Amino acid sequence: METDDKETEHSPAVIRVPFQRLCETMCRCLILRGFTQDRGARCAAIIAENSLVGVPSHGVNRFLRFIEGIERGWVDPRSSPHRLGSHGALEQWDGRLGPGPLNAEFAMQRALEIASAQGVGCVGLRNTNHWLRAGTYAWQAAQAGSLGLCFTNTEPNLPPWGSTEAKLGNNPIAVAVPRADGRHVMFDGAMSQFSYGALETAILEGRQLPVPGGFDRLGAITTDPNEIISSRRPLPIGYWKGSGLALVLDLVSALVSGGQSSAMIGQQEAEYGVSQVFLAFGTQILTVRTRAVVEETLHDLCRAQTDDGRHVTYPGERIAERRQTNMRTGVPVSAQVWGEITRLASQGEVAG
Amino acid sequence: METDDKETEHSPAVIRVPFQRLCETMCRCLILRGFTQDRGARCAAIIAENSLVGVPSHGVNRFLRFIEGIERGWVDPRSSPHRLGSHGALEQWDGRLGPGPLNAEFAMQRALEIASAQGVGCVGLRNTNHWLRAGTYAWQAAQAGSLGLCFTNTEPNLPPWGSTEAKLGNNPIAVAVPRADGRHVMFDGAMSQFSYGALETAILEGRQLPVPGGFDRLGAITTDPNEIISSRRPLPIGYWKGSGLALVLDLVSALVSGGQSSAMIGQQEAEYGVSQVFLAFGTQILTVRTRAVVEETLHDLCRAQTDDGRHVTYPGERIAERRQTNMRTGVPVSAQVWGEITRLASQGEVAG
Repeated sequence: METDDKETEHSPAVIRVPFQRLCETMCRCLILRGFTQDRGARCAAIIAENSLVGVPSHGVNRFLRFIEGIERGWVDPRSSPHRLGSHGALEQWDGRLGPGPLNAEFAMQRALEIASAQGVGCVGLRNTNHWLRAGTYAWQAAQAGSLGLCFTNTEPNLPPWGSTEAKLGNNPIAVAVPRADGRHVMFDGAMSQFSYGALETAILEGRQLPVPGGFDRLGAITTDPNEIISSRRPLPIGYWKGSGLALVLDLVSALVSGGQSSAMIGQQEAEYGVSQVFLAFGTQILTVRTRAVVEETLHDLCRAQTDDGRHVTYPGERIAERRQTNMRTGVPVSAQVWGEITRLASQGEVAG
Repeated sequence: METDDKETEHSPAVIRVPFQRLCETMCRCLILRGFTQDRGARCAAIIAENSLVGVPSHGVNRFLRFIEGIERGWVDPRSSPHRLGSHGALEQWDGRLGPGPLNAEFAMQRALEIASAQGVGCVGLRNTNHWLRAGTYAWQAAQAGSLGLCFTNTEPNLPPWGSTEAKLGNNPIAVAVPRADGRHVMFDGAMSQFSYGALETAILEGRQLPVPGGFDRLGAITTDPNEIISSRRPLPIGYWKGSGLALVLDLVSALVSGGQSSAMIGQQEAEYGVSQVFLAFGTQILTVRTRAVVEETLHDLCRAQTDDGRHVTYPGERIAERRQTNMRTGVPVSAQVWGEITRLASQGEVAG
């Protein structure tokens, strides 16, 4: 049941870099651009971890864009969140345009703290930046033994159902359900059927999409990634349903944080100042009995009949395995990206 | 952007019944089956309202099944929720197999009360029954001026991605964003692309689905509703994505309420004892500025370019209009269903 568009790790242009070396090299890049040692190390570790668990498009492959955001002044390496309001179990924080991954990790940590006292904790974070991968922060909650949920809005990149114009963000959401052995269940997905990263990967590999992913330039639904890149009309999941979900996730993000909606982000020269929501539940709800319900449900799911005899997987099932493999063999990184990163680690400017 | 599968109101077999008459007639049926006057009137009003706003499959068309649930003992007309646990902003309630709509309305009301004190309120409701329409309770929050969200699990009726066997519920979720004029934004949808009700409507009208809705008996994706009914393999929205979302909604429902998951409901002889989650946000987050963000975002969305010149609608946009029309002209009700209901209003047993 895991996403069918997990990124390939077997292209000849992909090399394997030891996790620790990846972290240290990216950390040097960040320190050269104004991060303190501690914050640079933490931010680099989050980004490296995303590649480690098999999502390079939201990990190391996005590092150069992350650096660009700092150099253009959209991301302030030294900013950290400031609390604007507290209403019991709900807090609103201003991300002050700090680094998205650090802000988001902080916000989920705060939601967990509130949840431990109040049963549920919610943090709205406005004026923050791209967090790279939604799953990082839901998984963080699961690692802390809690049920965690988070979503973000983005710049407009998805036409609403019935329209040809990108007015909605693809607004990723992640939900993680903790398990005692660390093999948490986690859904992590955007409201578009395929990310632009997944479309580009399919083009590089010369293949069609496994299911329709958008419209061609004539307005017909297609599996051709080239056509979708040209039309800029990816499909929302479930057509009108994903379109509606994307809208309400955007509005809830903006309202709960008191921040911008996708429409407002789209009026800027670039994507910054996004709005996010973090929700965590206290561990009181995880009893021997409720944990058994999770295990029984997964056991039942994985026994589901299939046409081809393969067993059904639950979302997130392969994370622990990928992590272990890549920790042993090195993290798959695009050779070209790695060349750029090593260059940036010894100098202060992005080329071009 | 509204769902393309809204149910038809123009079939020759559909008559129009004044809202008040519909409520009173259903209320009589309920009182004959053990409801008190007050609870019968409230329950009938919720069910009639679902048809009033254009969702008869989750309104009056489901009333006979609702009555069957009472007569078979799955729904206890006199039960109301009992609080099992309170952890600050999170409460867990036992629905004691009471009527789903009354239990759910109570739970959202309780979430609203908690939210007004704590900024956010969450109620997990276990051991409850089919609530008919998710949107009823999210809309209830919006009518109270709050942001509201709720979801439920169901009996297994959706094969996980990669499987031929229904192991997941289609687990509807509703999210409502309040607007001052009452024309709230609301997403209300299940994790299957089409409900069985929508498939049956398409068959009755002799049409194919507008987009693929499931698998045929040979395992190919199809727009033929007959084939999907035969295979019992509807498609999740976004293929693997809706499958993953359905699973995490099920697990969160079970954990937050301390109740059953879909897998456990599936072991019973019928669908009862489901698990639900209700989340409401305090009105503190709705300021002049954040309300303006909602209006600006909807304004931007509805101006989106289209191929055919039609304007893009937001989810829930037509609810107020349908409500007004049907209040004036009468609620569309299947003539056959209405015949059964009037018969049941004067006697105590469901035929057959």
